[in-house]
Amino acid sequence: MIYLDNAASAPVHPKALAAAMPFITENFANPSSAHTLGREARLAVIEAREQCAAALGAQPEEIYFTSGGTESDNLAVFSALSVGDKHKIITTEIEHPAVLNACKELQRRGSDVVRISPDGEGIVHAEDIAAAIDDDTAMVSVMAANNETGAIQPIADISELCRQKGVLFHTDAVQAVGSIPLDMRLLEVDMLSVSAHKIGGIKGAGLLYARKGTPISPMIFGGGQERGIRSGTENAAAIAALGAAITEICRDIPERRRRLSRLRDMLIVKLEKIPHSRLNGSRTERLCSNVNFSFADIDGEALVMSLDLIGVFASTASACSAGKQHRSHVLSAMGIDKKWLDGSLRLTLSEHNTEEEIVTAADIIAECVARQRKG
Amino acid sequence: MIYLDNAASAPVHPKALAAAMPFITENFANPSSAHTLGREARLAVIEAREQCAAALGAQPEEIYFTSGGTESDNLAVFSALSVGDKHKIITTEIEHPAVLNACKELQRRGSDVVRISPDGEGIVHAEDIAAAIDDDTAMVSVMAANNETGAIQPIADISELCRQKGVLFHTDAVQAVGSIPLDMRLLEVDMLSVSAHKIGGIKGAGLLYARKGTPISPMIFGGGQERGIRSGTENAAAIAALGAAITEICRDIPERRRRLSRLRDMLIVKLEKIPHSRLNGSRTERLCSNVNFSFADIDGEALVMSLDLIGVFASTASACSAGKQHRSHVLSAMGIDKKWLDGSLRLTLSEHNTEEEIVTAADIIAECVARQRKG
Repeated sequence: MIYLDNAASAPVHPKALAAAMPFITENFANPSSAHTLGREARLAVIEAREQCAAALGAQPEEIYFTSGGTESDNLAVFSALSVGDKHKIITTEIEHPAVLNACKELQRRGSDVVRISPDGEGIVHAEDIAAAIDDDTAMVSVMAANNETGAIQPIADISELCRQKGVLFHTDAVQAVGSIPLDMRLLEVDMLSVSAHKIGGIKGAGLLYARKGTPISPMIFGGGQERGIRSGTENAAAIAALGAAITEICRDIPERRRRLSRLRDMLIVKLEKIPHSRLNGSRTERLCSNVNFSFADIDGEALVMSLDLIGVFASTASACSAGKQHRSHVLSAMGIDKKWLDGSLRLTLSEHNTEEEIVTAADIIAECVARQRKG
Repeated sequence: MIYLDNAASAPVHPKALAAAMPFITENFANPSSAHTLGREARLAVIEAREQCAAALGAQPEEIYFTSGGTESDNLAVFSALSVGDKHKIITTEIEHPAVLNACKELQRRGSDVVRISPDGEGIVHAEDIAAAIDDDTAMVSVMAANNETGAIQPIADISELCRQKGVLFHTDAVQAVGSIPLDMRLLEVDMLSVSAHKIGGIKGAGLLYARKGTPISPMIFGGGQERGIRSGTENAAAIAALGAAITEICRDIPERRRRLSRLRDMLIVKLEKIPHSRLNGSRTERLCSNVNFSFADIDGEALVMSLDLIGVFASTASACSAGKQHRSHVLSAMGIDKKWLDGSLRLTLSEHNTEEEIVTAADIIAECVARQRKG
């Protein structure tokens, strides 16, 4: 088995598993309970909050735990509603459905939503965002890196621009954490979303970073957990795992990039040798973990299935659309010629992948493409 | 250690743990991924949905997985907004904060919220609900059993009444599952909330049952999981655990009631011997798992702390209000004399508690009360 679908969900880091297990087995208490067991669970949440803050250059009180990346994105986007009497939100055509569909809901409720197109390499330009901002703009939401193409977006420029214009800036950093430095002391980001299970945590936790003073309004009401922003019993196990996972993945980003970029580039070089193939997304402004190719005259779904039979686990675009099979909205937005849209393959790496796996996977992919083309 | 805070969070059932672990360790895939690992995770979600449906006498397509009980309650309550042009929601003063505060938010958005009082035993009367329903009423939300007093509410009568009047009926069954039969074929319930970690599952999952045709609108938007009602990567581990846990706790409800009622009544008899004590809530219409006492001239928080030091884990009211210390809104709503409000103690049982534990705990509580009274 060669797992190359890490952007959909990554292996749980041993330290994250170790952090989670006590709160699944021996300590099943409610972190809000006053007794010893409850206090222990509460301490795990507090420690994880500190770990997450440290990894992002943030303050612990700027971290709000949620059930995952999608909820974090929604919490951020819907906060546009609490910005005075401004009704416009600017986003991009290549966002994750969590941002795109939350924006659609805002539109249904009367907001004005502008979606900026990327260039042919999958990158959104700060100038295009700048041109769209007006006095009615409440928020800009641009992902830190795209989940399908790995294209790294110029969020330093965009966030600075938003700060100058007095507009809130949110970034979905679900794919970027651990691959590019995200230091809230250096970036003018107001809100940032993270998902635990994409970075070595377990499913069931995510976080929204919200800079002090950012107006965020709760979506889920109840016992007032997370300082009133997210009610519901804290998932101590998943939160503890998130704290451990983000610490590990951000421990040495330059080294992680060096190691993964080498594997990524090796895979790209090998796949480029396949006739009628095309690397999708920027070659330089690209996550160290992402490879996205299109093969002409290939059905991507069928390719994923034939790879699966041989034990190579990959995807066509993203796994985030609940198994729906359709053309990638990201590749379409990039204006890529139709002949490349149906035969896309996303291969995403983690620190668990080896050089040997990459070589083997590339050979298997070449064989499967050739076989499918022969019919 | 004697754990008597099961209503806050219950021990994980071994079968739930066994169901969850494969999806925390070896299979970390995204249930929406097309490859083998993804399909395996997806199958676990499908199986859990069937288990939950079977336990509730429902159809699998009537089960929507959420992140927990609070989210399920919110999803139900906010669905009142999608009921044509009706603006009134009727609930009770004794609901969990997840329902009460979601209703408060509805009120903030312009809805009319009516809160019905319980009687002195903590029970809401169907006649009072009936009297409040008018042509503008969209929904009635009454919990199946109260989380603080264990008072079982007449939801069979209330739901039938709502059906006759064409009003949606939601019940928060977080505390009731496994203690009273909840068969959707026999009850006219439109929506019902369940939390995994209160019934032997792990934290991070809950469900909303919604009868076919019930208008529910999503709160969290994205990849379209849960048939568009709840987006976000499915927490396969927690969902699998919920399926196993609900199956176990509903396997033989009469037997579970016999066993727990005996322990409950033993504890009640012993605590009634403490001078100036009072059982809160109905003696007959009471969850088999719940004991709630007040002791005059006692500070409940201090009592919980002194019990904690000896290894008896209990709570004053509920753990669901994020550690905030305040008088119980439930006991207050019951019109109980002030002298009983500060010295309340909630003891909640699970199938793991033994007769020996109950005897020991009762002795320790009597000692702690006596000691605190002596000063």
